[in-house]
Amino acid sequence: MKRIVGSPGTWSGMVLRLSQCFFAAASSLAMCSAFGFSNYSAYFYMNLVLILQLLWSLYLACQDIFSLRNNRDLHAPDFLLFFVIIDWVMAILMFSAFCASASVTIFFMKDMNFCAEYRRLDCNQFTLSVTLAFFTWLLQAASSFSGFWLLVSFF
Amino acid sequence: MKRIVGSPGTWSGMVLRLSQCFFAAASSLAMCSAFGFSNYSAYFYMNLVLILQLLWSLYLACQDIFSLRNNRDLHAPDFLLFFVIIDWVMAILMFSAFCASASVTIFFMKDMNFCAEYRRLDCNQFTLSVTLAFFTWLLQAASSFSGFWLLVSFF
Repeated sequence: MKRIVGSPGTWSGMVLRLSQCFFAAASSLAMCSAFGFSNYSAYFYMNLVLILQLLWSLYLACQDIFSLRNNRDLHAPDFLLFFVIIDWVMAILMFSAFCASASVTIFFMKDMNFCAEYRRLDCNQFTLSVTLAFFTWLLQAASSFSGFWLLVSFF
Repeated sequence: MKRIVGSPGTWSGMVLRLSQCFFAAASSLAMCSAFGFSNYSAYFYMNLVLILQLLWSLYLACQDIFSLRNNRDLHAPDFLLFFVIIDWVMAILMFSAFCASASVTIFFMKDMNFCAEYRRLDCNQFTLSVTLAFFTWLLQAASSFSGFWLLVSFF
């Protein structure tokens, strides 16, 4: 089994997946605690993607833990191809959700100055959630690249 | 010289680049003709990225035409690596700009219903511009993948 940092079935891979779970959960919690976030399509979409991300990362973290305990090899090409495709789709969804929410937050804070005018708008929570979503995306991109690199090294 | 569809120095590559120029220019024009677009960060950012995209695609279309007329090989690995890196950066910038603008347009049209309330807001122009930017991104992604595939085939 090749040892590429962050690939499935390695310690670094497991740490990456657990960090994704942590950041996705924290970002989703920050969003849910903001008043009326579901009125805005961009925030609703980001929350949905974050929950999907959390479930996917949790599933892969469990796979990694199982593989590390039982010394099972997760690097079969078919298995890996499936992982890498879903990983890339998740990374693209996460990036689009982050961009959409960031632009709406900038619109509230800078363009329209709604945050100062409407006190009920939880701009701090929105900003916190978007920042955490950015870190989730960075970690997801790292996992996707590492899986892709491993797949390329088979050919 | 390997003939991969859409790669530099081929007819299909040139058609892809010229289509990118056309869609980027059309999207930018649609945006500029909308009243007060530069008040919104997302639209301003998208317009900036569209102008960058137009310049980059125009430069590469000229390279393709020059290469086709003079039978020059554009597939030297160093030259290709430079192309592919900038192509990927442009594709990521274009995607982020499209997502940001689309989310602000959805916010205007669906979430807040501003388009029906404020007649001066050129929602049709914004929608047209965002749609054209989406096609620009699709074409840019096709070019990036084709260049990347060519680069991988060297190793």
